[in-house]
Amino acid sequence: MEDFAQKTWQNIETLRKKRPLIHHITNMVVMNTTANATLAIGASPVMAHSPDEVEEMVSFAGALVLNIGTLTRDLVQSMIKAGQRANQLSIPVIFDPVGAGATSLRTSEALRILEKVKMQVIRGNPAEILSLGGEKGHIKGVESFQETIEAVEAATLLAAKLGTTLAVTGKEDFVTNGNRSVWVSNGHPLMKQVTGTGCIATTVVAAFTTVDPDPLSAAATALGYFGLAGEKSAQRSGSPGSFQVALFDALYDLAEEEVRKGIRIREHQ
Amino acid sequence: MEDFAQKTWQNIETLRKKRPLIHHITNMVVMNTTANATLAIGASPVMAHSPDEVEEMVSFAGALVLNIGTLTRDLVQSMIKAGQRANQLSIPVIFDPVGAGATSLRTSEALRILEKVKMQVIRGNPAEILSLGGEKGHIKGVESFQETIEAVEAATLLAAKLGTTLAVTGKEDFVTNGNRSVWVSNGHPLMKQVTGTGCIATTVVAAFTTVDPDPLSAAATALGYFGLAGEKSAQRSGSPGSFQVALFDALYDLAEEEVRKGIRIREHQ
Amino acid sequence: MEDFAQKTWQNIETLRKKRPLIHHITNMVVMNTTANATLAIGASPVMAHSPDEVEEMVSFAGALVLNIGTLTRDLVQSMIKAGQRANQLSIPVIFDPVGAGATSLRTSEALRILEKVKMQVIRGNPAEILSLGGEKGHIKGVESFQETIEAVEAATLLAAKLGTTLAVTGKEDFVTNGNRSVWVSNGHPLMKQVTGTGCIATTVVAAFTTVDPDPLSAAATALGYFGLAGEKSAQRSGSPGSFQVALFDALYDLAEEEVRKGIRIREHQ
Repeated sequence: MEDFAQKTWQNIETLRKKRPLIHHITNMVVMNTTANATLAIGASPVMAHSPDEVEEMVSFAGALVLNIGTLTRDLVQSMIKAGQRANQLSIPVIFDPVGAGATSLRTSEALRILEKVKMQVIRGNPAEILSLGGEKGHIKGVESFQETIEAVEAATLLAAKLGTTLAVTGKEDFVTNGNRSVWVSNGHPLMKQVTGTGCIATTVVAAFTTVDPDPLSAAATALGYFGLAGEKSAQRSGSPGSFQVALFDALYDLAEEEVRKGIRIREHQ
Repeated sequence: MEDFAQKTWQNIETLRKKRPLIHHITNMVVMNTTANATLAIGASPVMAHSPDEVEEMVSFAGALVLNIGTLTRDLVQSMIKAGQRANQLSIPVIFDPVGAGATSLRTSEALRILEKVKMQVIRGNPAEILSLGGEKGHIKGVESFQETIEAVEAATLLAAKLGTTLAVTGKEDFVTNGNRSVWVSNGHPLMKQVTGTGCIATTVVAAFTTVDPDPLSAAATALGYFGLAGEKSAQRSGSPGSFQVALFDALYDLAEEEVRKGIRIREHQ
Repeated sequence: MEDFAQKTWQNIETLRKKRPLIHHITNMVVMNTTANATLAIGASPVMAHSPDEVEEMVSFAGALVLNIGTLTRDLVQSMIKAGQRANQLSIPVIFDPVGAGATSLRTSEALRILEKVKMQVIRGNPAEILSLGGEKGHIKGVESFQETIEAVEAATLLAAKLGTTLAVTGKEDFVTNGNRSVWVSNGHPLMKQVTGTGCIATTVVAAFTTVDPDPLSAAATALGYFGLAGEKSAQRSGSPGSFQVALFDALYDLAEEEVRKGIRIREHQ
């Protein structure tokens, strides 16, 4: 049985040494916070979305994040261009289908991106992930969650069908490649009171794919690390303003001892 | 005589239970902070501006915020589309005419939006509000204020003419529906040292219109609540970085006792 | 020999009294933080990029910041329009060529802007600055730096050739007008762990050009002040979340005594 706490710490340490560039084509709400999260975990962010440079920019990157939180059709074109170039160069692409299932545009554009770009990991809440399989999601703001349990079987089948790893986040996070699945139970309810924590989770997953060749392990350990940072922050503050500040601090200074004791990742039976 | 402190607490409590979705088509400067403010007060934010989805997105919302802080002509088209759909569905639309009166584009686009969309509340500083009535404003950055007193009569007439509620914020806030007017004297000067506090005020007003059917009462109690949160934050910090953090904390954790004691709203004589 | 500490304090004090409007056409990642930084140093921010209003908006401004961090060709058109109008009105234009040298688009658009708009100061890291002279930069995210020493001679020649002042920031900052050069050794490594600190440096330089007619002195004292604020923040926090909060506080409340003791600017020999 894999020692996920050990693996998590190893990924954190390697990341902090390697400082990979993470290219984001993401939404306007979280550009600043995901850039800061990228720095806090020890990687380097670049945000670039012009169709005239995304292919060149992604060629310098360790991983590419595509996030449709404030999508337009033009922006999706840039995403597809960058994603296809990343695929050619074997650079991992991580997808965050924000709001898929909520509007027709988001669902159809998410599916269009998926048709054109091969994803290393897709990170979303149950409604978003299920909508990619044609299940009708039910959404109330992008921060809302259904009970993850409803999504387990569908997500497993969908991962196999899409040939990718799905990271379905909620009260507990479920990560599956269709063959093997794990649960991550780190995290804290206050994380839902800060905008962009889902998007930050995606960024951490992307950074971990640059140091961990197994997408399932990369995604699970990234979510464990991020959730643990949330738990640490909640010890410092019970209100969202100071909690968010503490969250960036915790991502930066979480130490080996804390990681070894705190990570809660288990195989799905 | 209405007990505004009681009404404010009732609105806060109902909002925290109901968690309505607030759809924002807003400026790029404040997307993150207004999303976080929406969460802190107990509502759910969604930012979406593509013309291909705004009509669908707004149909899920409890209220719609239109804010022209970084407007382009394309963005205004999306605002009008979303606003007209909201009007059809009787979803309150709240308008923040950032910088109206400062440039011809902002003034003319603000007026164009007003012609096409019926607003539940318009929130702005005196220069912005007066420019909607054809008065020439005088502006120095979007955070600047004239003395509110200059705007009282003009605002009252304008509210009647437009058939809407105007929330004119400044040292004291003046809220009028043309017939009845109130003053809100909560707030703290440090709020002007943080970008986007005007926009957050608009967001809080929008959220309150989902729980309070009287736009005047919704706007006044929202501004009282937000101003009181500013006063509480100023007790914790006298510098803008930590003040802003404390402001989100205060929006989240302001308690009944504090609200009942602290709200200062009075009828205009 | 000039007393730079005295000059720095004088600029800070004048700025806090004058509260000039700083018009930014900047990137989406830092719009919020640079607006907050503008307020914290005692100036007024406005962000406006529509081609239909930038010429009018800039006419109200004390200085104009052009920053290509998330450029598109359309946005560059707005930058050129605003910059040319500022030139006509003798309003200082400050340029931040984020990522120039990293992609062909950024390098060529930066050069195109430079051809059309006369800059008072250009602020960038060595790779960005050198790319403006045709030197091939080497970049890893916009926050990375080469050793400044490599850039000294090339920067001095380039400043003379472009007829502008260059502020090359790194471990130490090098400011040159081609004729006279100074070193600024204020700052702290944690500043690189927060996104947008380079962009904030540019904003502070822009604000200082509205109170100091010598671009070299304006840029050097601005960078000294900002670096000193970073040093003060690092005394309060060793992690990036709380460090960033402390940085805005320090920009706002740095006092005369601290400035007089802390500024480290010296002539280049």
